[in-house]
Amino acid sequence: MASSANPFSLSLSSELASNSSLRCANSSEVFLRLPNSPAPPSLRSSFVSPIKIELNRVGVSALKVSRIGSRISASSTPVMDQSPSQTSSRVPTVVEVDLGNRSYPIYIGSGLLQQPELLQRHVHGKRVLVVTNTTIAALYLDKVVDALTRGNPNISVESVILPDGEKYKNMDTLMKVFDKAIESRLDRRSTFVALGGGVIGDMCGFAAAAFLRGVNFIQIPTTVMAQVDSSVGGKTGINHPLGKNLIGAFYQPQCVLIDTDTLNTLPDRELASGFAEVIKYGLIRDAEFFEWQEKNMEALMARDPGALAYAIKRSCENKAEVVSLDEKEGGLRATLNLGHTFGHAIETGVGYGQWFHGEAVAAGMVMAVDMSYRLGWIDDSIVKRVHNILKQAKLPITPPESMTVEMFKSVMAVDKKVADGLLRLILLKGPLGNCVFTGDYDRKALDDTLRAFAKS
Amino acid sequence: MASSANPFSLSLSSELASNSSLRCANSSEVFLRLPNSPAPPSLRSSFVSPIKIELNRVGVSALKVSRIGSRISASSTPVMDQSPSQTSSRVPTVVEVDLGNRSYPIYIGSGLLQQPELLQRHVHGKRVLVVTNTTIAALYLDKVVDALTRGNPNISVESVILPDGEKYKNMDTLMKVFDKAIESRLDRRSTFVALGGGVIGDMCGFAAAAFLRGVNFIQIPTTVMAQVDSSVGGKTGINHPLGKNLIGAFYQPQCVLIDTDTLNTLPDRELASGFAEVIKYGLIRDAEFFEWQEKNMEALMARDPGALAYAIKRSCENKAEVVSLDEKEGGLRATLNLGHTFGHAIETGVGYGQWFHGEAVAAGMVMAVDMSYRLGWIDDSIVKRVHNILKQAKLPITPPESMTVEMFKSVMAVDKKVADGLLRLILLKGPLGNCVFTGDYDRKALDDTLRAFAKS
Repeated sequence: MASSANPFSLSLSSELASNSSLRCANSSEVFLRLPNSPAPPSLRSSFVSPIKIELNRVGVSALKVSRIGSRISASSTPVMDQSPSQTSSRVPTVVEVDLGNRSYPIYIGSGLLQQPELLQRHVHGKRVLVVTNTTIAALYLDKVVDALTRGNPNISVESVILPDGEKYKNMDTLMKVFDKAIESRLDRRSTFVALGGGVIGDMCGFAAAAFLRGVNFIQIPTTVMAQVDSSVGGKTGINHPLGKNLIGAFYQPQCVLIDTDTLNTLPDRELASGFAEVIKYGLIRDAEFFEWQEKNMEALMARDPGALAYAIKRSCENKAEVVSLDEKEGGLRATLNLGHTFGHAIETGVGYGQWFHGEAVAAGMVMAVDMSYRLGWIDDSIVKRVHNILKQAKLPITPPESMTVEMFKSVMAVDKKVADGLLRLILLKGPLGNCVFTGDYDRKALDDTLRAFAKS
Repeated sequence: MASSANPFSLSLSSELASNSSLRCANSSEVFLRLPNSPAPPSLRSSFVSPIKIELNRVGVSALKVSRIGSRISASSTPVMDQSPSQTSSRVPTVVEVDLGNRSYPIYIGSGLLQQPELLQRHVHGKRVLVVTNTTIAALYLDKVVDALTRGNPNISVESVILPDGEKYKNMDTLMKVFDKAIESRLDRRSTFVALGGGVIGDMCGFAAAAFLRGVNFIQIPTTVMAQVDSSVGGKTGINHPLGKNLIGAFYQPQCVLIDTDTLNTLPDRELASGFAEVIKYGLIRDAEFFEWQEKNMEALMARDPGALAYAIKRSCENKAEVVSLDEKEGGLRATLNLGHTFGHAIETGVGYGQWFHGEAVAAGMVMAVDMSYRLGWIDDSIVKRVHNILKQAKLPITPPESMTVEMFKSVMAVDKKVADGLLRLILLKGPLGNCVFTGDYDRKALDDTLRAFAKS
């Protein structure tokens, strides 16, 4: 049972283990207190400390370990004897997105794909279309189909497997989803399930919004990026050759199911890309969360499950709060796009998919922070802290060398935040954790930033 | 001035003139009372009798005449001297679509395109994209651009002219709208204007819904079909090779502007096609309106402006009421689709655009009525009255001979009203003006109807 190849063995990285107090409450639970992560102030009362990690057949397989420190695989043994009903009774962390009659829960936890009733309670009708990509289908499609159909023989599940990558986030690929839905004779009471990263979520969501003028859908994000950002808030859409996400809809899912186990298979570069959005939440509205990240970035990079779960939960809480206050991006919601205007220009300039979204956002945040500093709106300690945390996350802090000032300008001119010809930007202003969304800034600062980061 | 080639001359068909009492109230007004159209019972108190037709530069050009009877062109002369402000002071009929914070007005009247402030008060931002087709652009694009820009130098108007016809209501054509919008660097505060029939309205509306996840739009419908049905209620979308309107959105305009003058240029067959939807309102919920139509179909076919204005207004009122009660088609709204399930099968079967939508709906209504009668839900007097009024409107009462039972079944299987595999239909039940939307009917009646109207 204690073999390192055993999927139910649990290990902690040495650093984490040496700095942590572990207490076995019972056979399937471990309370883990990280010294550098004191019970963080919660946005909602539902968050309680200490961080509680439930260990069982599912929970254990979620834990990704960089290097073996102390082995506590014994605690997982009894879990293998748990009956399915016991497994199903575990309660995931829930973050509610409050949007009136379109409110929905975000479930966060390990092993959630092994809890069929979580998914099934949100499936409307008898027909489901799972939209996924070639990479994720090989890893998780069977699990999802099982979760949808176990004990539920009336349900029929179809799937459409799209090519993997941002460059396929276009109308041609979207049409494949419609083709499959129509060939499968899906009707209005069908449910679309997005299984994958942000590209899949955005495309499946838009397909669900537009198919028969709207069917139900469920998000099962499998990347940090999708879990902390794109799956939450109802923005869906596809790219146009001239710009990202120019065609889409605001469309809310029935639920978001974040099984943190799916991060086990995420490549390092994609993991880091997701952290760019996590860092963003700290910068725009949650200084305490940023400080927590400064102390825990190493744990996050090492995929410490407790740190990941906390970062995902707190990111979702931040995003849910913003979206609840401003679903259709009247103003507040736009602040979630810190660094994105510069970042979109980078993604467009180098071609979709060459840089990950989070990488482009990271460089874009550095540019936004640089501009904020040039405007005199922040002091240089924030500039340094942003550089430092991004470096810790192995994220870029400059755009690719091929970018020119003109490339930035031409793409930024068609940004969705342009209103009546005026480009509005999200910029930091004041102490850490404060930002503004404004078109009222000195154009010279923007020009200076562009010239500092891109060639003429 | 009185030359028949003069666009400001007014003529009445001899039959209409001989049966009408005309009274010149002043230089720009004529009160016209049609003996067969007594002041109709209004759904809302805003409708007053007698029907008042305002004649001026605009109003006169609205009147389509089948054959010259008595000429009263003299009355239009003073109108040419009217100042723009006088012209602008005329008040259109307004039907309100009540959808909470997405409520909007439908303006109905002659000469409304010559009242720039009507359009301009609903334009958001400084950039407008007019979406129209080759046929309508030649007739009305200049007028609309003038209405948008007159006295409003800050506005810039772009236009995209699509090929004309239902067969172009697809993703490829839709992409041309996005391409133009993006090339023109339109932003979120732009306004899309749909100028044309139902195909243009549906495509422009969906483009507006999806461009940057939603920009404002305005409907200027130029066919009876669009004026009484498709422009009202926010259904937008495109066709898929396997079915009509399978991809789209519920998306409400800022306003609908119905300038009845635009019907002057509408071909007879399209005029009649629109009447199919007018007849539908009577059948499903407004027996009095149906009776009015029975008495006035001849006047409608002769394009009597008073009759047309009344039919449009009352149709819009019926549709607005249904849409206000059930925007997203929970049930009641589906009743607006009487005959449409059979009709869509016909349109798909013969190829989009071969039959006009209203023609297919007419034959479809006959089939729905036939099935209702087979179920014992209506008596045969209703069957006969439906046949009669459709014949009066020169609309088909059988599907094309090429249709087979299998063609109906295969298309109906992907109808949007299928839920969990069960096809729900709108059928008449009870006295004239009553219908049901139900999946609870004897399948044999459906089979018998299909076999009676289509070959095996």
